[in-house]
Order: sequence, then structure tokens, then C-alpha cells
Amino acid sequence: MKASKFYISTLREAPSEAVIASHKLMLRAGITRKLGNGLYTYLPLGVRSLRKLEEIIREEWNETAGALEFKPTVIVPGEIWKESGRWETMGPQMLKARNRGEQDMVVSPTAEEAYTAIVRDGLDSYKQLPVNFYQINTKYRDEIRPRYGVMRGREFIMADGYTMNADDESLDESYKAYEKAYFRIFKRLGLKIIPVRADSGAMGGSGSEEFMVESPIGDDTLIICPNESCGYAANVEKAACRDDESLDKNGKKHEKTDAAIEEVETPNVFSIEDMEKFFDESPKMFIKALVYRVINSALDLSSCPHAKDWKRVKESSGDYYPLSYACVLIRADLDVNEAKLASALKASEVVLADDEEIRQIAGAGHGFVGPVTAKAPLVVDSSVVKANDDGTMTAMMHDAIAGSGKDGFHIRHVEPLRDFTPFLCADVRTVKEGDKCPICGGTFYSTKGNELGHIFKLGHKYTKSMKVTFLDKNGKAAEPTMGCYGIGVDRTLASIIENNNDEKGIIWPMTVAPFQVCVVPIKYDGKMKEVADKIYETLKSDGIEVFLDDRNERPGVKFADMELIGIPLRITVGEKNLPNVEFKPRAQAEAELVPADEAAAKAAAFVKAELARLNA
Amino acid sequence: MKASKFYISTLREAPSEAVIASHKLMLRAGITRKLGNGLYTYLPLGVRSLRKLEEIIREEWNETAGALEFKPTVIVPGEIWKESGRWETMGPQMLKARNRGEQDMVVSPTAEEAYTAIVRDGLDSYKQLPVNFYQINTKYRDEIRPRYGVMRGREFIMADGYTMNADDESLDESYKAYEKAYFRIFKRLGLKIIPVRADSGAMGGSGSEEFMVESPIGDDTLIICPNESCGYAANVEKAACRDDESLDKNGKKHEKTDAAIEEVETPNVFSIEDMEKFFDESPKMFIKALVYRVINSALDLSSCPHAKDWKRVKESSGDYYPLSYACVLIRADLDVNEAKLASALKASEVVLADDEEIRQIAGAGHGFVGPVTAKAPLVVDSSVVKANDDGTMTAMMHDAIAGSGKDGFHIRHVEPLRDFTPFLCADVRTVKEGDKCPICGGTFYSTKGNELGHIFKLGHKYTKSMKVTFLDKNGKAAEPTMGCYGIGVDRTLASIIENNNDEKGIIWPMTVAPFQVCVVPIKYDGKMKEVADKIYETLKSDGIEVFLDDRNERPGVKFADMELIGIPLRITVGEKNLPNVEFKPRAQAEAELVPADEAAAKAAAFVKAELARLNA
Repeated sequence: MKASKFYISTLREAPSEAVIASHKLMLRAGITRKLGNGLYTYLPLGVRSLRKLEEIIREEWNETAGALEFKPTVIVPGEIWKESGRWETMGPQMLKARNRGEQDMVVSPTAEEAYTAIVRDGLDSYKQLPVNFYQINTKYRDEIRPRYGVMRGREFIMADGYTMNADDESLDESYKAYEKAYFRIFKRLGLKIIPVRADSGAMGGSGSEEFMVESPIGDDTLIICPNESCGYAANVEKAACRDDESLDKNGKKHEKTDAAIEEVETPNVFSIEDMEKFFDESPKMFIKALVYRVINSALDLSSCPHAKDWKRVKESSGDYYPLSYACVLIRADLDVNEAKLASALKASEVVLADDEEIRQIAGAGHGFVGPVTAKAPLVVDSSVVKANDDGTMTAMMHDAIAGSGKDGFHIRHVEPLRDFTPFLCADVRTVKEGDKCPICGGTFYSTKGNELGHIFKLGHKYTKSMKVTFLDKNGKAAEPTMGCYGIGVDRTLASIIENNNDEKGIIWPMTVAPFQVCVVPIKYDGKMKEVADKIYETLKSDGIEVFLDDRNERPGVKFADMELIGIPLRITVGEKNLPNVEFKPRAQAEAELVPADEAAAKAAAFVKAELARLNA
Repeated sequence: MKASKFYISTLREAPSEAVIASHKLMLRAGITRKLGNGLYTYLPLGVRSLRKLEEIIREEWNETAGALEFKPTVIVPGEIWKESGRWETMGPQMLKARNRGEQDMVVSPTAEEAYTAIVRDGLDSYKQLPVNFYQINTKYRDEIRPRYGVMRGREFIMADGYTMNADDESLDESYKAYEKAYFRIFKRLGLKIIPVRADSGAMGGSGSEEFMVESPIGDDTLIICPNESCGYAANVEKAACRDDESLDKNGKKHEKTDAAIEEVETPNVFSIEDMEKFFDESPKMFIKALVYRVINSALDLSSCPHAKDWKRVKESSGDYYPLSYACVLIRADLDVNEAKLASALKASEVVLADDEEIRQIAGAGHGFVGPVTAKAPLVVDSSVVKANDDGTMTAMMHDAIAGSGKDGFHIRHVEPLRDFTPFLCADVRTVKEGDKCPICGGTFYSTKGNELGHIFKLGHKYTKSMKVTFLDKNGKAAEPTMGCYGIGVDRTLASIIENNNDEKGIIWPMTVAPFQVCVVPIKYDGKMKEVADKIYETLKSDGIEVFLDDRNERPGVKFADMELIGIPLRITVGEKNLPNVEFKPRAQAEAELVPADEAAAKAAAFVKAELARLNA
């Protein structure tokens, strides 16, 4: 491709709304251009990389995941969303329209419903399963605050695969095949991916795995074990860690005490810091007690006397408490992770109780809530009491200090299991950098992550609500189980740029570079034109995607554009160097002089080696 | 690909709503499946052909039309449609939605606005022009009555190119390059295309050309000259033909008469047939006079005395008459084409006047309207009076018979130009099969056509309304001119099937066949399996897209499926024929026996020859 036939549209400065590197560089290089809020057009330069990325996904999903491409419509009848029940639950992020026949239509935010409806039609027998389809297609989510360019846009391209399987074993096979394909895809893109497993991935369970990249603007906080042989990585909302010992300020472990609880007057002691000063002791010796308001808990609280007045709603899907409370006990140097707490309480949400609620439950204000006196189920973190596999419990703290349930007083010589009994023992601590890996004991580090892909065992959610059945091997009607597999295509492209750039611009990996080589004559004239044309034609005939900058621009402008655009290799043809030309990989600081008549062969070899390395 | 890894979903019968061959076959073969009214999913078999078709368009638009692929969003802000003025004029076929910020959004029915807005951004100088972009992307039109499957669906794929050019000469070059690409595309698809030019295509004019295929369910009636060296083809709404002589029942041409008009009492003579009987004469001797109600005519009628009471609205874009009338005179054996009439009257619409209006204009009822007495501008078809290039007029009928303007009476010895004077001479006749080509005199035939593509010079319509300017060579601000180029991708795929099928199913052209060769072992077992596998593997390694039917089905089922799906070549491996196998092109009735170990090479040669022929 010659520059004179292409559309180069570079900007010296990115618009001020662009704050992250990929957004800035995509606008500056002319990869995307804004059409509306959260709506980005890919310009021809961007389409070239985008199509290569799509093709890599396509190849791996075809070959490694054994999937077949299909193409449902982008606009789908609201009817199928009503069938699945998500017409209501998807909320305002779903863009809806009414057609001229007053029928509800949806601009697809995802395609579980469409896939399920399509495969349901024509499904009779287990012999037809599994059905493993994917598409790479337009999606739309009406993000309330689109930002970071295509990283979080409203319209986006998603590669979304779906499998319908006869049984859990088959779903497990599909899931594993996709997992393998994901690793291949991200490897080929040169992206260092962090796979985050939601659980142990037990067969047929609600297995799921997120594929993250480190990113300062990531939505998720990740806890990662640095030992490569271990590879533990988890979202902070689910991360676990090894127990650590509760040591006092002298590094000593307290023994179980026989001393009875003793009340200590603690005027003006409200915070943990106040306690540290007052008691001259490490917070690892304190039990922190926090009252939480719990929304829609499905936990059975009937054995807890405090819960007897709380309303319990009976439903076919299970009973639940619309509103309940819990008193959480945790070692005072640790924080409660509300996502883990909600999960332990089988609740849709947990919120710190307000002053009035605290006083009602604890009989005192915040800071004096007491483990012994609180009138709510005690949810005790493993740092205080640990549940053993055999059903017994072990106190992890001894001779501790805690709130008294009376304003202005704390208590000491508190013995867990003697002075209070947990309603529930659970791991609800927020795991942090420095905590130890539960698998190998490595020291965790923490990072922000951006989710590029997600694989998920859906189970019977859609086949049940949308009434899909097949005849199994025994001739009995059964509901298939399902899996879904998504990759955010635009976000992946942006992440590649986010991870591969310098102050001059983008440094594309060879597999998704818009062009593989650029030939830049200092002036497109005379001998320089002749040499540049020859290298260009030779590379073209060798199947290399080469860009010839034949513009009548100053060399500085051409260099700056080629570096901004990020073509992985530049061959510069300048009069003073002839019969040599400059050979400069974008990722390297220094150029090398090579004889002009060897440049094309050397460039082709460079391109092929890079491709081979990434695609290996 | 092996059948066991693919998704074959064939139907013995098509759903009753499918009435045309392509719709029936696409459903039966498992190419598409309905998701909603006018919404069709492509199943994996369909995606394979669809992608090939898209790739052919992409190649030709890249190479032949010099276009660059871009990708605007499918969902676009209503704002840009308001800028262009089409927010109102597109009507209910445009699907609109409001996002959570209460902004109007549009599901793109076409992309002139998006293209114009995108290219406007960043356009400064003539040096940046032309900008030649295309996309192959989802579109949506809320068809009131979707039917014929993907032939007229609501969501569809359109390949749409747009050029922005500095001047008419550049637009002409872009237009011609696309025209060439269109011919290449349809040739490669094996589609016999009828190019229909809207006008002479004068440079910078409102040139447009439709690419049609013959189809019994076509929306358009085409008038075609059979002489290949001529190639004249036109939509009946615009077709012209050679003048033919007005001959009487004895085949004689009437001479100009000196006889004065004579009134003849014609009781019970209302129709042309009645006149033929009553006067015992050919209808070519009669002048038919019809009163039309004319809506929004921009013709200047101020010189016509009858028009003086009609309201004329003054507007910056030009004056017009919201309601006016015309009396159309035409030889009685011919019909008025209302599209041509509206065009001649510069009107948005013409409708036959009702009885009351006729009586008001003509002083008599329908059947007795008289050319001499009608109180409306006379629009005279070329069959009655012809306008010459030098501004003079020639009477094409003499001594004619016409209505008298009095119920129950006709008049004879009518002499055009003596007895009445045209307000406007125009070609308003409906051209029919048997009429003569205006270029070469060939005898027209008529057929129904379906529009697959359209190229169109838009001129300044969008650049003016959306305020796009650039600095021209002289440093002056100028508005670019534009062209647009569209291909209905789904409709083209359906048309290929419509033109290539038999009672057994589809007969794909090699260029868009989902698979090029299928290998069908009578039983996938023993020696047959061994031979089939070997042919399959050999073809695969030769880059041939081969399908191995390894299903455990009766041979009849496998044959029927392969024929329905339409794979261009079948190799059948049966025990009784070994060491030979059957070699059967789908388009041929008879199979041929070839040695098994030569089958793969012969099949590959067949595929390559077919591809070479179509892609030549």
C-alpha cells in the first residue's frame, strides 16, 4: 500500500478527553475517530488491525475450540428476552426500540437468548449435541459513563461463543477447549494474560474464568501469586490467603487464658488507632466487630434467637430474608471484603449499618460493638475462629481485646468459643499485597486488571427458562446444559496498544500490525525513489504487508507518523547512506545499515520470525 | 470438515411461508433460520458462503475501486440525521431508540450521514481528497412487510461505499472505478447482471446505475434490448423507445387532412374497445385524453390560462403548485407511464382524476375528454406530437379521432397542432415488450428485475446540508461532491441460489460454495472409510475445502443432503465400484467412474478450473 492511496490522518495532540495511552494513541494515529458518546468509528488503519485480531480469534475458535461461526441478527425480538427473564433484569444498559408494528426490539448486548432460541429450533436428540457456535459481531450496551475510548464504549465488537451440551462432562470438554483457545489467542497477540479462576472449576459446577491484563485503569483488583509454578490469581472479591498468626506487639502468640472478661473504661477511644495507643498493643490482639445490614439473605437464620422477628419470605426458588443483620468479627488489622461477606451470607448486598441500627443491635455506638452482647448472628472471620474440615472450630486469637457493647468501655481477656459462639465461620477478609498464597505460600502482590475475556458455565439457566429439551440416550426428555465464552474485541485491541507503546507512539506486535514493514524514502525522487520502489515491490511479491511512504512531506513528518502508527519495521532510504539503507525495528532504539539489495530479504525474514515466535 | 464436527440441519419441507426458491432452499439446506419477522440467522453453512461473498466484494472494492474499508458504528446519534434533514424524511423504516441520556439514536439504515460526519472531521485541503471508504456491515430497515427471507428482510448486510471528491471529474473517476468493480463482482459470482442506467451518466450529473438480476419476484419491470452489442436496459419507469408510425387498420399512414373537425354521436361508446367497434378502426387512429391530478408540480404554468386560479407556493428551493391538473394526450393503443409523467411535470405524484374532477376540467365524463376543449395544460405524448431538437413540433398522428368534451359524442378529422397546441411535449408512454430500442432498433423484451446494487452520484446533497468544506487548489473554501455505492449482500446471496437450483436443491457456483467438494462413503467403515479418508486428506492438504460425510446415515439421506446443500462436486466411495469411485459435478446429471487414487487430483483440478473461469 502506498501512502498516497491510503488515508493517513495523524494528530499531534490527542483531544483532552482522552486520558489513557490507548485512547490517545488510537485517536492520534488515526485508528479510530469519535462519532458520538461511546461510539467510535474504525478508520482504515484501525480496520486492518481489527480484522487481524478477529481472524486470530476465528482461527483459534475454529481449530482449538472446535466452534462453528454463525451470525444471528444484531436486532432481536424483545420476546426472547422476556422468555429468559432478562428483559427486566438487564436494566437500562439494554437499548430497546419499538418497531412499526409496535413490537419490542433489542439491540443485542449479548446473545445467550438468540443462540438458545436458534439452537432450540431443530433440536431433538442427544446425537445433535454439543452445538458449539460463535459469532464476532456488533453489540451495544448503554454504558452510563462511556470512557477510555473503545476500552469502555457503548457499541463494541464481541466475539461470543456458546455451547449447548448434553451433560456436564461434555460441557467440561467444551469449556476446556475454549480455555485452551483463549491462551493461544492471547499468546499470539503478545498479551501477558492473568487467568483468574472463580472456583476450582469442579466439573459441572458454576466454573468460570476471567482473562485479565494488568492495567492501571482496570475495573478489577487482582491478587496474584508471583510463583510461576503456582499461578494463583484471583479477583480481590474472591481471593483467599493462608492463615497467619495473631502475634502481639512483641511478636508473641497469646495463649488461651483462664482470666475472666474484664471491663476497661476507655474514654475517647473510638478507632483501632485509639485502641493501639490506649492498650499499647498490636491490633492483631483486637477483635473488630462490625454490624452489617444484609439484603435478601438466603441463609437459614431460624436457629438464631435474634433473627426470630425478621421477616422471612417463602418462594419456590428458596426462602430468604429481605432485611436482616449480621455482626462480623474480624482481627482488627484486617478489612472485611463485602463481596465475600455477601457471598457467605447468600445475600444480594451487604451495607454497613447506620448509627441507629448499630445501637439497636449492639446496644452501643460504633467502636464499642461487642462480640459477647451483639443481638445478631455472629459471622466470624477465619482470623478469629476457623472452621475445621471435621466440623469442629479452632480459636485463632486468645486473650483478646474487644468492644464491650457499652459506650466508653472495652473488654479484655476475651476468649473466642468461650465467650461467644459463631453463627457462621467464614473467610471474609480482604486479601492484600503481602498476604500469603493459600496454595504455595508465596507472597501476594496486587494489581489492577482489565477483563478481556470470560468463560462461564451457564448450566441450565437459559435452557430451563426458554424451555429447551432433547431426548437423551435413554429416550428421556432432558434439558441441555450451556457454556458461554466471550472476548471483548475492541478492548483487547486497546489493551495491546496500552501494553505496547512509548513516547513516540504504538509498537504493534507483528500479528496485528496494520502493516508489517514501512519503506520511507527521505525524498520520493530519483535514486531514492528507485531503491524504495524496488524494496517495496520485492516485499509485496513476497507476501509481506508493506507500506511505502511516498508522500511529499519532510522526513521528520514521515518518521513521526510511522512511529506513531507503530509499524514494526522501518526501512529508510536516504541518499547519503546509499548503497545502504537503514533497517530499524520499531522496538529498538538504534538503526542498522544494510545493503539496499539485501534489505527486502532481511525484512521478510524479520517479519516471518516475529510471526513464527508469536504464533508458535 | 467432517460432518460429525459440523452442524447439518436439513429439512425435507420448507415452512409454508417460504414461497420463492431461494427462501425455501436457504431454510431447507440449513443456511438460514428465522429468529423473528424479517430477522434471519445465518447458520454455519450459510456463514461460509456469506463470508466468501463478502470477501469477493472486499477484494474488488479494494483492488478495482481503490477503496479502503472503514467501520462506523451501527448505532449512530440521531443528531447527524437531523443535520442532513433525513431524520424526518426517512419515515418509519428507520428504527429509532432513545438512550439512557434521552438522546435519539438510530439503527443505521444506510450510512451517508455517518460517512460524511466522519470524513468532515479532519478534512482541510483538496490534497486529502478523494476519500474512498466502504464498509460491509449490519443495516436495518423496518420493512412494513418483510418477505422472501433474506431477499427482503429487516436486518440485512450491506456493502456500502462512499466517495468524497474535490470535483465532478474526480467523482466521475470514482464512479467508473466502482462500476468496473461491480461488473467484476457479479461475474465472479456467476450472476448474469443487467446494468440499468438512469441517464446518460454525463459527468457530474445525477448519474446512477442499478445492477439488476432477472427475477420473477423482482420489484422492477425492466425493458431490455436483446442486441448484446447495444445493451440498452432500463427500468420501465424511465425506458424510452423508438417512435413508431401511426397506421390505420389497413396498415396505411394517414395524411394531414383539410377536413374540419366533425362531431359524431357515439351513444354507449365509452372505452377504446367500444371506439374500435363503432368506428371500425385501429386504436392507433384515436387520441386518448386522460385528466391527471398533479401533486407538487414545480413546472411553471403561468403561461397557461387554465392554471391561473391554481395556488402557487413560493419557496427558496423553487416555486411549486401543491395541486394542479394536466390533460394527457396519447395514442389510444398506448398506456401512460405515471412515473415518466410525474417526472415530466416535475411533480412528486400524479393520480388519475376522479369523476368530479374530470367533469370540471373536461366538461364531460371519462371517455369523452376532448383535446380541444379540456381546461388544463395539455401534456402531449411523443406518439401524438413530437418536439424536435430545434424547438419545432411535428404531428405524429393525422386525421385522428378523439373525445369531444361532450358526453355521448366523439370528434373526427382531428389535426394535432391545428386543433390543439401542446403545453408540453413529452415521452410519457409505457414502453412494452415489442417496442423498438431507441439506440439500435432491436425489439425489446421485458422482464422483472431485482436490484442487487446501485451506484449513485450524490453531488452536494450531504456536504451542503452537513456543512463540509475544504480548501481547493486556489485556496478557496469549496463543498466536496459525493458518490455512494451499495450492494445488498444477503439479497445477492439469495439471488445466486434463485438462479442456481434444481428440484434437488442448490447448485453453488464454486466461488461461493460453502464447501468445494464432498466425499461421501456409502458406509464409513472398512475399505470405504480408508479410501474416503485418503481422498479427504489429500484434498485438504491441497487447500481444497472438502467435506467428508462421515455420518452413520443411509446413503440416500447423505446424497439428498449433499445435493440439497449444493456442494459443486461429489466423490462417492462405494464398495462395489472400488478401486474406482464416482465423480459427479452437482450441475451434471451423470456420474463418472475414476480410479480412487486419481480422484483427489481430478477433483482439485475441477475446483481450480471452475474458480479460474469465474474469477477470470
